[in-house]
Amino acid sequence: MTGPSDVPARTQVAVLGAGPAGLVLAALLARAGVDCVVLESRSRSYVESRVRAGALEPGTVALLRELGAGERLDAAAMVSHQFELRIDGARYVMPVTELSGQPMYVYGQQEVVKDLVALRLSAGGPLLFGAEALGVDGIDGPTPTVRYRQDGVERTLTADVVVGADGFHGVGRRSVPGARTATREYPVAWLGLLVDAPPSGDDVVYAFSRAGLGMHSMRSPSLTRLYLQVPATDTLDAWSDDRIWAQLHTRLAADGWSLTEGPILERAIAPLRAYVSDTMRAGRLFLAGDAAHIVPPTGAKGLNLAVRDVKVLAPALVALLRGDPALADAYTATCLEHVWWAMSFSCGMARLLHASGDPFEDSLRAAELRGLATREPGRRMLAEDYCGVRP
Amino acid sequence: MTGPSDVPARTQVAVLGAGPAGLVLAALLARAGVDCVVLESRSRSYVESRVRAGALEPGTVALLRELGAGERLDAAAMVSHQFELRIDGARYVMPVTELSGQPMYVYGQQEVVKDLVALRLSAGGPLLFGAEALGVDGIDGPTPTVRYRQDGVERTLTADVVVGADGFHGVGRRSVPGARTATREYPVAWLGLLVDAPPSGDDVVYAFSRAGLGMHSMRSPSLTRLYLQVPATDTLDAWSDDRIWAQLHTRLAADGWSLTEGPILERAIAPLRAYVSDTMRAGRLFLAGDAAHIVPPTGAKGLNLAVRDVKVLAPALVALLRGDPALADAYTATCLEHVWWAMSFSCGMARLLHASGDPFEDSLRAAELRGLATREPGRRMLAEDYCGVRP
Repeated sequence: MTGPSDVPARTQVAVLGAGPAGLVLAALLARAGVDCVVLESRSRSYVESRVRAGALEPGTVALLRELGAGERLDAAAMVSHQFELRIDGARYVMPVTELSGQPMYVYGQQEVVKDLVALRLSAGGPLLFGAEALGVDGIDGPTPTVRYRQDGVERTLTADVVVGADGFHGVGRRSVPGARTATREYPVAWLGLLVDAPPSGDDVVYAFSRAGLGMHSMRSPSLTRLYLQVPATDTLDAWSDDRIWAQLHTRLAADGWSLTEGPILERAIAPLRAYVSDTMRAGRLFLAGDAAHIVPPTGAKGLNLAVRDVKVLAPALVALLRGDPALADAYTATCLEHVWWAMSFSCGMARLLHASGDPFEDSLRAAELRGLATREPGRRMLAEDYCGVRP
Repeated sequence: MTGPSDVPARTQVAVLGAGPAGLVLAALLARAGVDCVVLESRSRSYVESRVRAGALEPGTVALLRELGAGERLDAAAMVSHQFELRIDGARYVMPVTELSGQPMYVYGQQEVVKDLVALRLSAGGPLLFGAEALGVDGIDGPTPTVRYRQDGVERTLTADVVVGADGFHGVGRRSVPGARTATREYPVAWLGLLVDAPPSGDDVVYAFSRAGLGMHSMRSPSLTRLYLQVPATDTLDAWSDDRIWAQLHTRLAADGWSLTEGPILERAIAPLRAYVSDTMRAGRLFLAGDAAHIVPPTGAKGLNLAVRDVKVLAPALVALLRGDPALADAYTATCLEHVWWAMSFSCGMARLLHASGDPFEDSLRAAELRGLATREPGRRMLAEDYCGVRP
């Protein structure tokens, strides 16, 4: 790992954040011969074990392979050719590969991060952990600077361009003056559970029931990932193991399927939130991933969307550094196309899959889901959105 | 017209309401050799001039032709092979005939009623106008009765079956004990305008704008029908001609298109409402059309849905009168399939086409509309729903 003594004071691109967005961007820039420094406020072990998304679009997988970060993924990822939509107990298999031409891949975000960290470090870095960005200055001039603190020492990194890939709570987002954001808070949250038990079936199951969403997924052949819709105001105290299992059995109930219980290894309540910044650039500062937009988890699009951003950003920065600003100038507009597509899918699923408690609205959601699950154009639309293979 | 002196006291099927549901049912039953009496509380001239829906699905048109009520329709209806979706000023033509295999027909509901009244009367009726149903009794026995008043005289009609096709405010609906209804009130209403000016183009235009929905349609080559989304609490006082035209120009604005103004002949504010009864039958009383469900007008499905109901009901009654109750027993369940399909389309369009005033939500609606307008499966889904040619 690059230590403080090796830290450069000057680079072409300063990247804030060693999540998927920052690390894929660094790999893309390295391939194009552009120097960059990645600053990450957390430790390496933290980012490599932080459990987040687990579903990779084929386009994301293709890029990771292309960058040389696909070896472990190809060995360990579960290829998902179908998922199941369960509507009031009725089962609808969605053969996504058949419908969209491409499968999805189940592979934890922390594994992607491990692969990308290893890739970066094997290429010589620089990648600084425990380096907390404090502020970004001079973004309207040609050489913006990042102030950061590492090992208690404040330093400055001067760059041609700064990229804020440091998430919703990062410095990047706060350093874009005048950005207007459209946000939504949901009245529901997701209680996520990691269970020491083999998955109850091969398929990811999204279950809409009048009692609320239940979801079945997997992390490995011996680890089940389960989710329950809960009120946004709930805390873990409200959810005993007994209540959790009773609700999971109720919401996921279906003929020919039964839920395997096991010790709950991890549990957490995550709010559902959506947010879009109307600009992803201010002068020499660019935003990517969660720093610019957050999608609700219903579409499993967060990581994939971040990767889409940096696929647009990398060639834009390469051109900008060579003196051509056209792609950089179009960056926000180009990204907002895929951002609002992903948002519309993710928020659409968030609307349809959660029970509202209102009988009319919930019957309407069930009817709309049945249309998506049973009608040919609905099935194709859903599969294309799910796999992100929209033309 | 059948006068009071000819009124039978006994029939096989007593039909309440001479709207499209009641009149199509009467024609279907007549064709099957079943006697029925149609009671309508309003006058003939009232029902023949009441302006309602104007869009007929191909399935509705086919049935009207089959029944012998298609002659004037075929001469006068405008065949609509496409419509336009306008999203924040961008124009998307939806070639519905190409996409769904069938066109839509623009022909006023009052014209359909005229044709069906003429058909019924030419076949000898009975069809009683100004006959107000007061109550339905004995629905749990084999010979239910309808109490009604005509010309100030109370009479009783005894039947084997009573059908409430008398709308949301009718006696039929109120006579089904224990029906649970799911309802929704909308915060918006439609200001509908009949304008003495040729349509501004050949296509029906649904325009989503941040200022609210604007809609352009036609009633004839010289009559334009226009709609504006307004707050549900607004009255006509709030809408001067100047304000109406300014809002229409703003909301319908698009390159290469301009709105032709003209004298406003009729104006009315109609609330948006949705409602579904969970049962369409109690003993020997059956409900059809608006008596059982109301869809918001965004999908132009109200009349077409009523016709779908009676297409299911007629053979069910014929079989029931012959002693076979199977189809009648399945009536509610069979209808709820198409009811919730139409509801999901109509409420979906009501959600997407109206502006909410919330920037995030409205950007989401625009993005979802663009997906429907531009992606192949989205276009097909929308066209199939619009034309009601869902398999």
